[in-house]
Amino acid sequence: MIAVDTGGADEGVATVVEGARRAGTAVTLFGPAAEMALPPGEVVDAPLVIAGDEEPVHAVRAKPEASIVQAARAVGDGRAEALVSAGATGAALAASLFHVKRLRGVHRPAIAVLLPVPGHPTLLLDAGANVEVRPEHLVQFALMGAAFMRAVHGTARPRIGLLSVGEEAKKGTPYVVEAHARLAALAGELAGHEFIGNVEGHEVTAGTVDVVATDGFTGNVALKLMEGTARTVTAAVRDAVRASALASLGGLLVRGRLAGLRRELDPNATGGAVLLGLRRPVVIAHGGSSAEGIANAVRLARRAVDGRVVERTAEALASAGVLRSAGTASVAP
Amino acid sequence: MIAVDTGGADEGVATVVEGARRAGTAVTLFGPAAEMALPPGEVVDAPLVIAGDEEPVHAVRAKPEASIVQAARAVGDGRAEALVSAGATGAALAASLFHVKRLRGVHRPAIAVLLPVPGHPTLLLDAGANVEVRPEHLVQFALMGAAFMRAVHGTARPRIGLLSVGEEAKKGTPYVVEAHARLAALAGELAGHEFIGNVEGHEVTAGTVDVVATDGFTGNVALKLMEGTARTVTAAVRDAVRASALASLGGLLVRGRLAGLRRELDPNATGGAVLLGLRRPVVIAHGGSSAEGIANAVRLARRAVDGRVVERTAEALASAGVLRSAGTASVAP
Repeated sequence: MIAVDTGGADEGVATVVEGARRAGTAVTLFGPAAEMALPPGEVVDAPLVIAGDEEPVHAVRAKPEASIVQAARAVGDGRAEALVSAGATGAALAASLFHVKRLRGVHRPAIAVLLPVPGHPTLLLDAGANVEVRPEHLVQFALMGAAFMRAVHGTARPRIGLLSVGEEAKKGTPYVVEAHARLAALAGELAGHEFIGNVEGHEVTAGTVDVVATDGFTGNVALKLMEGTARTVTAAVRDAVRASALASLGGLLVRGRLAGLRRELDPNATGGAVLLGLRRPVVIAHGGSSAEGIANAVRLARRAVDGRVVERTAEALASAGVLRSAGTASVAP
Repeated sequence: MIAVDTGGADEGVATVVEGARRAGTAVTLFGPAAEMALPPGEVVDAPLVIAGDEEPVHAVRAKPEASIVQAARAVGDGRAEALVSAGATGAALAASLFHVKRLRGVHRPAIAVLLPVPGHPTLLLDAGANVEVRPEHLVQFALMGAAFMRAVHGTARPRIGLLSVGEEAKKGTPYVVEAHARLAALAGELAGHEFIGNVEGHEVTAGTVDVVATDGFTGNVALKLMEGTARTVTAAVRDAVRASALASLGGLLVRGRLAGLRRELDPNATGGAVLLGLRRPVVIAHGGSSAEGIANAVRLARRAVDGRVVERTAEALASAGVLRSAGTASVAP
């Protein structure tokens, strides 16, 4: 059963409920029961929402009855198999850290986003959970991303790239250079992925890499820049088409194709961001998710459970020997 | 007179010579004289080229006769007013640091690139000169970028944004948060620009900011990601148009408009990257520049000289009180 937090969705509770219904799998809904007509599963009444402008760690501590906190606790307790949130990313991350908890040996969970590269979905992580990272974090991000792509997307041998400013191993910040060396040293021992070295910005959308590992600052900027650029370019194309060919059959056909392309580039299509490195799958739906976007997020959580992504992540990290040992434990955020 | 280094251009020496001719301003060409038929200005024979795969600092020191080194020396000596290079960015940067030299009080020169945002050219810096920065570097980048936009693009009061992962002043790495505080503290004293705070990735292409300041790692990734995304999206659109409307008049009209859009998004149109923070203007043309791209780079260098960009940068940094003092001098790279 998937715990679905309905709190804070831009399109309202009813859209989340409708999306959860469409997903076609067992759910429990956490949110304002009064706003849910004919819910597709059990409802835990939780009218209190943590908003995007609240300081997440403080809010999660101060509001144990908030919908995201109750939903995360249900997952942590084993009452639910996975968590889907339609609310604020920061609150979902904080609630998951406190209640779902990190997988043993993971330094830091990461936010992974499947980029809608046409014909070749590409996983980018970290997309913003950790604005500063150390080399061991980047190494874990890379391996967690590869495990996700194997378990959930059936990519047999994911190609891992490390985002940097040049292809050569020595290019980038000292942390990136060190992470490159560690990933290169692992490569021979592992059959589960291929480390293709550094990738530059233009390679992220080229369809030549399956997992792009980076720090949460660069990853967040990159993700939003990609969305903004795609929007700017498609808007310019739409204007060009309108100006030149509105009345013609050709223009209409072209506009139909553009609509298809916009759907393919739509973040709703990929089901949202995934938190990797926790004891259960957590999916954070896009803020402005449609009902179909929510349904895709719930389906993604279901696939993550069925594909045993958590277990396979733990195995991948253990077999690569990159688990955090007790002696070098870092403090959880 | 503009010193033009013809070495290392992807399209060959003849293309650079043709571009320099088209620019319609006085030039001296540094490169292999034997390959230059009817040069549009004086030629300094310099057949030796520093290639993109050489370690720049070492190569610039070891090859004083290389075309980029001779051209930079001519600018440093006052024989030329500005430098345009069609060769490797790293070599141009290193040669400029050694021979054109930093403006007094500048911590680190930055690579500034005018992004082809349709209808609203937006300056991004640093695009790769400094993979790690301190807050005082970011502050100088922001003010140098604003001075450039005033002097060269006639932007009366450039809006400066600091690239980060959220709009709130506390979002980002500690260095970004500190730079934000310093820029915000300056804002009231200065009439020459407006600090609009943090900007996120999607705002870079939205046309709502004139100068985007960031570190060279993030800036380089962002620039290449924007190019890659624009290429991926326009290719997808082209395929969609071909598949649906190739034979129709509408399709032809649309394709004509798309060609116009591609020209607008073409990096050649903006004349290349500019090194800010040196004693003379330095423009690095796009690696694959056409003759028109080279001409635009030379024209940009001419405008930078005529617009007194160096003098105005020095004034802006001095009046803001952010010049590096002798006591806190950092070592030049």
